Amino acid sequence: MATQVLELLSTNKVFGGELRKYKFKSAALGGLDSNFNLFLPPQATSSKVPLLVYLSGLTCTEDNGAQKGGFFGPAAAKGIALLFPDTSPRGAGIEGEDADWDFGTGAGFYLNATNPKFSKHYNMLTHVTFELPQVLGVADLPIDFSRQSIFGHSIRLYTSSFDSVVFQYRSVSAFSPICNPINCPWGQKAFNGYLQGGVSEAKEQYDATELIKSHTNPVNILIDYGTGDNFYKQGQLLPENFLKAARDAGHDESQVEVRSQEGYDHSYYFISTFAADHINFHAKFI
Amino acid sequence: MATQVLELLSTNKVFGGELRKYKFKSAALGGLDSNFNLFLPPQATSSKVPLLVYLSGLTCTEDNGAQKGGFFGPAAAKGIALLFPDTSPRGAGIEGEDADWDFGTGAGFYLNATNPKFSKHYNMLTHVTFELPQVLGVADLPIDFSRQSIFGHSIRLYTSSFDSVVFQYRSVSAFSPICNPINCPWGQKAFNGYLQGGVSEAKEQYDATELIKSHTNPVNILIDYGTGDNFYKQGQLLPENFLKAARDAGHDESQVEVRSQEGYDHSYYFISTFAADHINFHAKFI
Repeated sequence: MATQVLELLSTNKVFGGELRKYKFKSAALGGLDSNFNLFLPPQATSSKVPLLVYLSGLTCTEDNGAQKGGFFGPAAAKGIALLFPDTSPRGAGIEGEDADWDFGTGAGFYLNATNPKFSKHYNMLTHVTFELPQVLGVADLPIDFSRQSIFGHSIRLYTSSFDSVVFQYRSVSAFSPICNPINCPWGQKAFNGYLQGGVSEAKEQYDATELIKSHTNPVNILIDYGTGDNFYKQGQLLPENFLKAARDAGHDESQVEVRSQEGYDHSYYFISTFAADHINFHAKFI
Repeated sequence: MATQVLELLSTNKVFGGELRKYKFKSAALGGLDSNFNLFLPPQATSSKVPLLVYLSGLTCTEDNGAQKGGFFGPAAAKGIALLFPDTSPRGAGIEGEDADWDFGTGAGFYLNATNPKFSKHYNMLTHVTFELPQVLGVADLPIDFSRQSIFGHSIRLYTSSFDSVVFQYRSVSAFSPICNPINCPWGQKAFNGYLQGGVSEAKEQYDATELIKSHTNPVNILIDYGTGDNFYKQGQLLPENFLKAARDAGHDESQVEVRSQEGYDHSYYFISTFAADHINFHAKFI
């Protein structure tokens, strides 16, 4: 059996650390080539460093967060590695996967598809949560996998991950995330397309607001959204729903902080403004 | 006669300030539409602020520095407005202007063309140095035009500008600039294309290394380049030539600092790493 091989596509020195772009054949994505970016802070040359995963939003690739997020300075200061996966499989060749910007290519929603049409390739949950750390571990990169957290932009608040009994992340944060996807158009479209059971199947696995209701262990969650964000205004994000569910379930401000940022929109200008806040938040836990 | 009209295309809140993208009909560029980005720091809501102009490199637009430079945090902290012009006229319709990535569209070299083929439109020197400040002034934006500096990436060190007797800039800095363009392929190609007198015409106006030789007034110049930059290795940048000429002309380290940054390349990852250094450098003078 062939060993997984990471192909190094490029390296860039940045803030004293190194950004590496890799390609490999992803088993989780049905054998398709998949790219990711990995930032190793300067501290990684002498010791293992914790890992913070960044999930980019609709239409994005592994590059958007790396190029525009403004994460490297704060991450270098805190000695944190950053992993930027792609947002979907590429080149699966499934009919219609390139038709819409909010479904299919560039919009995998970080779930595992159960609709047979997509289930061979669209398994971004497994790819992000299990396959990439495993691949990095096999490659013997200087990462302490016992210290992992996750953050991201827009595409669903990655809340399966706050169940640290099942998943490995110590803290979760997001910029303008889709907090209650079963109740918004983006989420409904994605779930009805990717999942055999559609929205009702998603409710138990992929909806942050539903999941937090029955989650009793302590969590570490930070959310920022902008009041000038058109997707927020259109009801795609619904952070209030998540906040209420979290409070009702007994998660107070020390566990779940949801910040409304006056006048900011959905762009990377917003993200970069609060990049250091999020890195510093995770640094407390990893 | 019609008044110049700035059309506001978009705004984004960033680091407490505002990024505005404008379009207007540029007289300097022969009546073509031209875009620029303007960052106003939070301080601009209560007082006039100094202006720092950023000149992007080959193939770029007004967006590259704004999206990837990492300038807004440091500029907001110092209360400095940032102006991002485009790198060339767009849509002049001149035969061959789109044939190469290093000449024509996206590669105006911030000069005023004298070759009749280009001279109606390719007047980026006038556009950047005179027209844009004038247009911003007419629009009554909260900028103190007595306090201006300039920095940029790659395309020629904007050294006409260090002659503050003629130009308005108090300080000049650059990331991996073309320091001696009459002696490198990029510069020679540009000058022979845009200027009637070719390289010899450029020598007196557009070559930083030549110009500094006879420049006796004090200057404030900071240059960073990376030793991993392939364009540096290929002899396109020639920072050593500029440094030697500056020292020979009596400009010591307090006036001209040229820093070699180990392992960094020509990308925005390099630029973003030293973004705060450059903003803070200019803040001392404006």
